[in-house]
Amino acid sequence: MRKRDVVVIASSTDTHAELLQRGAAAGKAMFCEKPVDLDVVRARACAQAVGKAGVACMIGFQRRYDPTFAALKARLAAGEIGEPEMLVITSRDPGAPPIEYVSTSGGIFKDMLIHDFDIFRWILDDEALSLFATGSCLTDPAIGGVGDIDSTAVTIRTRRGRLAQINTSRRAAYGYDQRFEVLGSKGMLQAGNHKPTEVFAHTADNIGHDKPEHFFLERYRVAYATELAHFFDALANGKPLDITIQDGVKALELAEAATRSWRERRAIEL
Amino acid sequence: MRKRDVVVIASSTDTHAELLQRGAAAGKAMFCEKPVDLDVVRARACAQAVGKAGVACMIGFQRRYDPTFAALKARLAAGEIGEPEMLVITSRDPGAPPIEYVSTSGGIFKDMLIHDFDIFRWILDDEALSLFATGSCLTDPAIGGVGDIDSTAVTIRTRRGRLAQINTSRRAAYGYDQRFEVLGSKGMLQAGNHKPTEVFAHTADNIGHDKPEHFFLERYRVAYATELAHFFDALANGKPLDITIQDGVKALELAEAATRSWRERRAIEL
Amino acid sequence: MRKRDVVVIASSTDTHAELLQRGAAAGKAMFCEKPVDLDVVRARACAQAVGKAGVACMIGFQRRYDPTFAALKARLAAGEIGEPEMLVITSRDPGAPPIEYVSTSGGIFKDMLIHDFDIFRWILDDEALSLFATGSCLTDPAIGGVGDIDSTAVTIRTRRGRLAQINTSRRAAYGYDQRFEVLGSKGMLQAGNHKPTEVFAHTADNIGHDKPEHFFLERYRVAYATELAHFFDALANGKPLDITIQDGVKALELAEAATRSWRERRAIEL
Amino acid sequence: MRKRDVVVIASSTDTHAELLQRGAAAGKAMFCEKPVDLDVVRARACAQAVGKAGVACMIGFQRRYDPTFAALKARLAAGEIGEPEMLVITSRDPGAPPIEYVSTSGGIFKDMLIHDFDIFRWILDDEALSLFATGSCLTDPAIGGVGDIDSTAVTIRTRRGRLAQINTSRRAAYGYDQRFEVLGSKGMLQAGNHKPTEVFAHTADNIGHDKPEHFFLERYRVAYATELAHFFDALANGKPLDITIQDGVKALELAEAATRSWRERRAIEL
Repeated sequence: MRKRDVVVIASSTDTHAELLQRGAAAGKAMFCEKPVDLDVVRARACAQAVGKAGVACMIGFQRRYDPTFAALKARLAAGEIGEPEMLVITSRDPGAPPIEYVSTSGGIFKDMLIHDFDIFRWILDDEALSLFATGSCLTDPAIGGVGDIDSTAVTIRTRRGRLAQINTSRRAAYGYDQRFEVLGSKGMLQAGNHKPTEVFAHTADNIGHDKPEHFFLERYRVAYATELAHFFDALANGKPLDITIQDGVKALELAEAATRSWRERRAIEL
Repeated sequence: MRKRDVVVIASSTDTHAELLQRGAAAGKAMFCEKPVDLDVVRARACAQAVGKAGVACMIGFQRRYDPTFAALKARLAAGEIGEPEMLVITSRDPGAPPIEYVSTSGGIFKDMLIHDFDIFRWILDDEALSLFATGSCLTDPAIGGVGDIDSTAVTIRTRRGRLAQINTSRRAAYGYDQRFEVLGSKGMLQAGNHKPTEVFAHTADNIGHDKPEHFFLERYRVAYATELAHFFDALANGKPLDITIQDGVKALELAEAATRSWRERRAIEL
Repeated sequence: MRKRDVVVIASSTDTHAELLQRGAAAGKAMFCEKPVDLDVVRARACAQAVGKAGVACMIGFQRRYDPTFAALKARLAAGEIGEPEMLVITSRDPGAPPIEYVSTSGGIFKDMLIHDFDIFRWILDDEALSLFATGSCLTDPAIGGVGDIDSTAVTIRTRRGRLAQINTSRRAAYGYDQRFEVLGSKGMLQAGNHKPTEVFAHTADNIGHDKPEHFFLERYRVAYATELAHFFDALANGKPLDITIQDGVKALELAEAATRSWRERRAIEL
Repeated sequence: MRKRDVVVIASSTDTHAELLQRGAAAGKAMFCEKPVDLDVVRARACAQAVGKAGVACMIGFQRRYDPTFAALKARLAAGEIGEPEMLVITSRDPGAPPIEYVSTSGGIFKDMLIHDFDIFRWILDDEALSLFATGSCLTDPAIGGVGDIDSTAVTIRTRRGRLAQINTSRRAAYGYDQRFEVLGSKGMLQAGNHKPTEVFAHTADNIGHDKPEHFFLERYRVAYATELAHFFDALANGKPLDITIQDGVKALELAEAATRSWRERRAIEL
């Protein structure tokens, strides 16, 4: 691997598609931040270009490299709780981004839940058969004003009959809430939040500990580094990439289906 | 209040409707275990009879009297986390009842989730506007054999736009799992499981504590007693009942809607 | 067992010795609240009278019947953490009793730590070889004014070389703190505090849960009932008592030694 | 600051004293790993040389820079729990070092508890008035064979009457146990262990989570880095060092007193 063979795309979303296609045409190995694009058709075209060029292309779903999430996945894969049956994902931001960002974000499903859709596919190792999404604008009327929502509830049933539920909010007063739990035939594995410290305070009010790490830059600091380390290690040593552009397309398809489900108030078959 | 003025109905479900109507006709105050009936029309007729007779009638949703659930409700009502926005209920039994019971239970939504539908109404103090339910038979094919499912995922949107998700299983290898959490505008309140003891074991394997109390007789032992104490206290002192037959009908209507949603694979407007 | 054969002594401490001796003389089975007496010589005389009369006599160390403590003891006895090596006891009251009580209590070691000395003997199943106690008056000068202390630190080394540390305070702002932990050759068992509910609140301030149950009447409610049930069950069925007057004397001897160690600023050999 | 002005001493303990004195004579700023020396007289001589030369000299008590410990100290200093009254330190290694190391380590008090003595001084911001130490050889007879012990219990009373207890073991089957808690007039602050991940497993056996991070290299990885960053930052910006050679001498004096207390079976006045 030489330096000039690799492209890392971390620019704004609307530039991804063109850069991916130019990189593919130039035969570069590529790392691209999620999402591939806000438009599913264009994302599929990128995937096709990458496939045709035969170049490596990884999409940045960094959460797979979070130490807690990765350990849970490994223990699940090792059979610790038997066959997975249900997945519950809680994914809440400490606060919404500026309304200017929201209005061009592609909507909460493509902007925020795309990570949760990837976690869903990765953890259950299965694909969605049907999906139902609903939501509300509860935290800030301005979000509704630009046609978006800030609170969502998604239910997915997979090909193997497994069930997943995702609940999301743009605002959790107690901070960045990133939890999920998997019920299996022999038990349950939970991924809890990370705390900055292990100080516990016992006072006349309550017994309390730290809120979760503030936001994604704190919580996923290690994950971002591990993700890129995997990318370069895979390239350098001819290993397969953990995450491909197909994963980026699949997560986007779920986000697209969720958006339609919410707008049309009906379950979507996939 | 004299002893002969009160009827406590704790017989099998198929006897409730007739006993309720006879009790109403006889002018008795009544306590009746859930569900009112498996049939919504008949349940409504009972409610009508009770209303016409002007008798007190409480339905046994004992979970409202669980110390943890009741404390959470009181703190929510006191405004500790502001306005409620989302509710996530996890409700799992340690194991399924005998298949003979399952086959006459009215299905998992009327038999098991009816409690969760009541919790939903009680905690959010709101009514369902739309409901989507799906599910699978994952733990025992015999359950599917009698036309039922053992794993469910329900999503409800309320009149005020609040969201609720319920996930349920007939089998959790680690025991009776009875948790819920409410996200509000100023924070979150969680109701955790009860453990038999506060022993923590640190070994070469892990740091571990007790599984939850075994099943409903253990977990809701205090709740059952408090529930009946409230019933008799209300009667004796002329106070209003916390739970009426209308609550029993409303929970049953949600269970009915969930059953239809699951069978017809579509969201139900209420 | 007939009713008239049993005496339960729950009167004030200064009446215990005479009642025990009169009960023994009358051939009664007896249950007596701790301590046997504030004076070791008189306590030994009571034990002698009981032994000579051949009557059953149980001392009320109710903590042994606390569900958490009893489960820990059973798991320790079953070998879950191998051989016990170290014991750390934390024992703190929410607040001091009235100064009138303190001044006639026999001092903190006989009044408060006598329970902890019994826990020490029961959990380690061993006897003290040497003991060192120190302490201070830190929470209320009035306690020092009557010659007592409110904060203590005790270290015991046993015949088998095991180590125990006890820390005690008359005042913990967060409530009744009753914890201990045993380090063994294969792990550690901890007994944690009991909470009234399992509500967890996540707010902008912290993630918090309930303080411990308020004081001994709440925390040991179940233990007091189980203790007396054991006493009557043992009498009715000819079983040995779990706790005898000898245990009462031994705990008092440790309290006496601790008092001397604190006053004389030196380790005491036993 | 130029590179040649600074000496970092991380060689074996028996080389510290000479290097410190040569560094002082050469006018270098120095960072030296604990302990200053195993001999109190020699350590004092080093401190004198440093003082005379007027050079900066920091001793490596890295635990003060652990995120949890540092946060606790800051909250204590901010008055969150009022005036500190009692400190309980639990300090246990996952396993003993090779017996060759033990035999030249200066004994458990100087080798292992020296860190805890520094934590004691730092957290309570007070000095010992009296100290009692006892201990046993419980985990490996070879340790006793070289005249040392592997399990200790230390009690300290400070000039202001505050109490501290330290319990230590060379072997905890569940891993590196590094906890302490401070009782204050308004509450308690606890420092808990750090876990590698926040995965919680619910199985038919128990509800369990990760053991603590394996040993000091894992637990104090961040602390070691922060410690050196402080050293260089202080030098570069003319700030005072958090820890001086006097702190190294004081901790060693406590270790020396503890060794004497244990050998002579008596409390030591300081």
